[in-house]
Order: sequence, then structure tokens, then C-alpha cells
Amino acid sequence: MTASARSTAAPFTAGDYAARRERVIADALAAGLDGGLLVTPGPDLTWLTGYRPTAITERLTLLVLSPHREATLLVPLLERPDAEAAAGTASLELLDWTDGADPYAVAAALLDPAGRFGISDSAWSMHLLGLQSALPSTRYQALSPCLPMLRAVKDDNELARLERAGAAADAAFRAVVQLRFAGRRETEVAADLARLLLELGHEQVDFTVVGSGPNGANPHHEAGDRVIREGDAVVLDFGGLLDGYGSDTTRTVSVGEPDPEVVRVHGIVREAQQAAFEAVRPGVPCEEIDRVARAVITDAGYGEQFIHRTGHGIGVTTHEPPYLVEGEARELRTGMCFSIEPGIYLAGRFGVRIEDIVTVAAMGGRRLNTTDHGLTVVA
Amino acid sequence: MTASARSTAAPFTAGDYAARRERVIADALAAGLDGGLLVTPGPDLTWLTGYRPTAITERLTLLVLSPHREATLLVPLLERPDAEAAAGTASLELLDWTDGADPYAVAAALLDPAGRFGISDSAWSMHLLGLQSALPSTRYQALSPCLPMLRAVKDDNELARLERAGAAADAAFRAVVQLRFAGRRETEVAADLARLLLELGHEQVDFTVVGSGPNGANPHHEAGDRVIREGDAVVLDFGGLLDGYGSDTTRTVSVGEPDPEVVRVHGIVREAQQAAFEAVRPGVPCEEIDRVARAVITDAGYGEQFIHRTGHGIGVTTHEPPYLVEGEARELRTGMCFSIEPGIYLAGRFGVRIEDIVTVAAMGGRRLNTTDHGLTVVA
Repeated sequence: MTASARSTAAPFTAGDYAARRERVIADALAAGLDGGLLVTPGPDLTWLTGYRPTAITERLTLLVLSPHREATLLVPLLERPDAEAAAGTASLELLDWTDGADPYAVAAALLDPAGRFGISDSAWSMHLLGLQSALPSTRYQALSPCLPMLRAVKDDNELARLERAGAAADAAFRAVVQLRFAGRRETEVAADLARLLLELGHEQVDFTVVGSGPNGANPHHEAGDRVIREGDAVVLDFGGLLDGYGSDTTRTVSVGEPDPEVVRVHGIVREAQQAAFEAVRPGVPCEEIDRVARAVITDAGYGEQFIHRTGHGIGVTTHEPPYLVEGEARELRTGMCFSIEPGIYLAGRFGVRIEDIVTVAAMGGRRLNTTDHGLTVVA
Repeated sequence: MTASARSTAAPFTAGDYAARRERVIADALAAGLDGGLLVTPGPDLTWLTGYRPTAITERLTLLVLSPHREATLLVPLLERPDAEAAAGTASLELLDWTDGADPYAVAAALLDPAGRFGISDSAWSMHLLGLQSALPSTRYQALSPCLPMLRAVKDDNELARLERAGAAADAAFRAVVQLRFAGRRETEVAADLARLLLELGHEQVDFTVVGSGPNGANPHHEAGDRVIREGDAVVLDFGGLLDGYGSDTTRTVSVGEPDPEVVRVHGIVREAQQAAFEAVRPGVPCEEIDRVARAVITDAGYGEQFIHRTGHGIGVTTHEPPYLVEGEARELRTGMCFSIEPGIYLAGRFGVRIEDIVTVAAMGGRRLNTTDHGLTVVA
């Protein structure tokens, strides 16, 4: 059974994509982007057209969303059939360019030569410089800084997909803690996690962090050759895509009887995660969630060991606005989805992180990950 | 047995990476980039430092190669341990920045505020705009347009890796044509190809195109649910990484007795590929190779059906300079490696492409793919 065969998600229609594009153009104008938006392959393009090119390459693919003309997707000639097959491109104009032609000249003809544009965060600098050179009076801002909340508020169809992705990740956690940890390499447990995510409904695995003992103190450690030992704390942080939407959850487990300091640090992180979760409600600034989590950890004496922000939005990609970080004063709104993932990292010894995806409902937060927050003991 | 266990490649040392960086700074100055180069995660960073971050994200990672200061790699604090572990970072200065800080202010302190810089093609526009805003008098050019041949000439260690990658891809082709095609889905043959590439030495599979019948007429079709039929032409285009260097080869096969038109078109493509190969020697402009291949196909009446350039460079990534395309007047040099891959695409019917990786030696081209160019018949 393939993932698509068991999908229960209502497909997004050409009309859904067109409605998103209409809304985004209005948002752009309200943000002072009088030229509109320039979107290159990546999550914004996926969300606005359903088109996800096979590879992101040096050949320019550009969606022009302008208040002055029909939405237009410029693609390399040889990728046109793929673009035409996407669900959301029936409702826009497709243009192509051929190897050897200057794609920036073709794009420039679609743009207000004195316009101010928002451009995808991850658009290649080569392409931005090509546009700046073709139209020297144009001005650009990256989408996240200027329209950070473009995709942040999810609709019911999107929420349903995120909820299923979270439930599938939780099922993978419940299954993996039944397996043996002691004596096996991190990479073996990571492979189990990847297999379980796929078996339990994900169409794509994006990361399977297994950070045992001192490796858990490096929050971006993936999984290595280290053999897991009795007494280790092990950080498990994993996720992928299900029906095109992301999962991302972390639990820290103990291999056998936990070390008393692991128990204490885990309790602090758990308290920080809970406090941050309880602070979620519409209208609260994003940075406030970070402050609440950080205060618990700082008060316990580990402020210097919580070395990252508290969370990030999630949707068609795993890291997107809203970011729960000091300096992000924008307010939470109903329908936003993000991680809450405080951690404490003791270099050379161990790390602890607990992460749930949380959505903002009218009355407060709702968790999309619901496995136990206790320190699970594994074999 | 893992790929690394069977690797016979001499590892690149910190000194190798430092020497590449020295050479690149000299190239940058010669190209008028008085500020030096700004390199973000991707093939240039891999080649200059051995550092390949787990993921390319919104957090700025930036290598500053300046004529005025020691090479400096700026990384997010939580990725510092990974950066420190890379083979080529021992010979440079590492700086980190913390979530909530302004990474562009940190980077700006490293840069000549009136400098002209080369920047990685694929650097996120968000990062470029952040630098442009922090230092409004700086100027930027994308690396491929301004220093296209930065990584184009391979040294002996790199050539040896590319040669092994090519031989492993050839072995996968010889094995896959022993398998049954008729009655199976394209995706099944693609899975066989991926498995064979890994079994035969690749550490990573990047693409396995199986374009049967009309799907072969779309050069960027990957593999789909179509069931392959007796009489189909099938385009097989596949590759990945072996010891960090790429393979990329294409053969078109016939399922059972070939259609006479497939035979004729295949013969034209074969002739075009051979003619282009024979034109390779140091000093020939890149575009000349494209012209030679195109002339054969145009003279045969299929010029309109050859809808892409003739080839692309290959190294730590699959698409890089030199590009064999009209308008690329730069000359081939000894040690360059690239694909020669003419094709003819008859919409709705079938496609034919033949692709070898070729390196430039003193006396002419040398193929790194050596499987037969005849129209192989499969079952």
C-alpha cells in the first residue's frame, strides 16, 4: 500500500491555489510590495501552485504574482510538462524559456521596472542578481522578513494533514521505544525510526536524530556510529512529510535506570515545555513563548545551556515562520502551527529536549503530538 | 560493507582545502572581486572546506574568503560542532552566532564595506538582501557568471573519483539491462537502478530517470506508474555520488525488436554524441561542442526536437560549469569534466538520449562512461 493510496486528505484544487494567490497579492500590497511577489521553487511555490520541481537548479523557475497581470509561472522549456501537471497551474499562465536564452530578460518583461517586490527567502542569489541587473530600479525584500506570516495560518485541510502527520510520528515513537537501544549504533535506531515513519504513513522522512550520551548535547547531531550504552540519555528528534505536511517531534529517553541528573534536567525541560505550551493563545507575541520557556530553564540555572530558540512554524516545510524567538514581536493567531522544543545541552555529557507541534486555537494551544512527556525507559 | 569501507580515495586534507582557498582568492582578485568571495552551503562550500551542513536552512552559514584576512567560516552556534568536525575547517577561523542575534551584522564586520564580492549562486536571496542592507555600498556578482570555472578543472584525486563513479554507473547499466522491462512499471525499474547504484559503490543516488514510450519525450520525466510495453524505447538516465563525486549517464534501450523510427533517431543521436566527443580538446569554446552536436541533429531534420543544451560540468555536484551551450565562449581546459548528452524528443511518442561524462585530456576527450552506444535490446 503506498502512502497516496491510503491518503484521506481532500486534494487541494486549482481554485484553492488561485484563492491563496489572490490573498497573497492583497497581503503584498498591504506590505508595500507594489510590484508583487516573485516566488521560486520551494515551500512557497508548492503552497501557491502545487508545483514541486524534481530538482532546484540553476535554471530559473519563477512565479510572478503581480497586482497588474494574471499570475504567471515562468519555467525552463524542458520542465514545462511537469509544471503543467501540477494541480494549481491550470489557473495561471505558463511561460517557458529555452537554454541559451536570457531568462532574466524574459522575467523582466513581466515586472514593473520600478517596482518593489517580495522574493522567496531561498531564491538563488544568482537569480536575484540577474533580476537586479536587468531592472536596476527594482527593489526587493525577502518574503520571511517582509511577509513572515504568509503561510503561517493554516486552514482546516492543512490542519487535518498536520494532525495526521503528528499522530503518525507519535505512533513511530511508541513503536521505537519497544525496540532494543543498548548495544546498537545510533544509525541502527535511526534506520528503525525511518522505517517506522514510512510504515506508519509518511511519504518522506526528513530527519531521524538519535543523539546518545554526549552526542545528545549537540542539538544538530543526526546519528553516528556511537554504540548506545546502558545509562545513556538519548534524544530522538524525527519527522517527515505526510500528505505534503510536516511532522517534527522530540522525546528524550533513558536506556535503563536513568542517571539522577538526567532525571533532574529532564524535569526542568518538561516544566519549560509545559509552561510555554500553557502560554499559547491568540494575541500573545511569539517571543513571549520563548521567554516563558527560557525563564524556567534560566531560573533552574541552565540558561546558558539552552542554546537555541524555542520553536519554529511547520507546514509544507519543517522550518518556517512563526519563529518563537526573542525579537519576534508578532502575535500568535488562531490556526498557526509551530514546535515548542526547549532543551538543555551539557557539553560532553548529555542533552535533553522535548518537542511537540502545537496549534493555536481560540482558547489556547492544542498539541498535535501527544506521547507521554515522562522520561521513558528503554531497553 | 559500507561505501566508506570500500572507498579507495585518498582523503582530502586540511592542506588541500587551504590550497583551494588560496587559489580561489587569487582568482577572485583577478576577476575584480576586490572584497573576495562569500560562500554559503552547497557545492562550493563542500569543495572549499569539506563541510556539508545537515540541512540548508534560514540560519546563515557563510565562508568569507577575503584577500585582507584569514579565511573565516561563520556558523550558527548550534551547528558549530558539525562544522568543526569537517576535514577542511581546521585550517580556517570559525565564528558562531546565536539565535536572536543579527547574523548580517556579524558578517558585515568581516567585510570591506565598499567591496565587490562574488557570492554562491545558490546563496539564499534572504541572506544576500541582509548583507546588501547591512552594507549598502557593497556590490555582488554570482559566482557562476563571474568565476564560472572555479571548480571546473579537476585535479588527479578528483578525476580518479569521477572515473570510479562513472565505472560504477556503467556497471549498474550493464546489470539493469539483464532484468525484465516489459510489463513492469517505470518506478520498479527505477528502484532496481537505485539499488544497483548503491550495491555497486555509490553512497548516494541522485536520480533514476526511466522514461518509457511517450514519457521519454519529456527529458525531465523521472519515473512514473506507466507499465513498460514491448516495442517501447526507454530512456535510462541515472547517477549519484561516489566518494563525494558525481556520476551521470544515459542510454536509450528498446524493449524487444526496435521500431524502425527509433533505430533511425537513435542513430542520429549516436552520431551527434560521437561528433561532439571528437570535437573535445583544450582551447575549443564550450559552445562549439553544442554546435557540433546540434548541427548533426539539425541536418537530420530534428533540430526543433533537441530542446536542451548539450552538456553540463560535473564534480561535487551534478550540474556545474562548464555548460556546453550556445553563448558560452569560454574554452575547454585540460582536467575539465562534463556531460555530452544530445537528445531528440518526439512529443507523445518517444525520446532518445545518449550521455557520457567526458574529461578533457591533452590530446582530446576521454570518456568516463564506456558502455556500448548501440541500441541495446532488453526483455
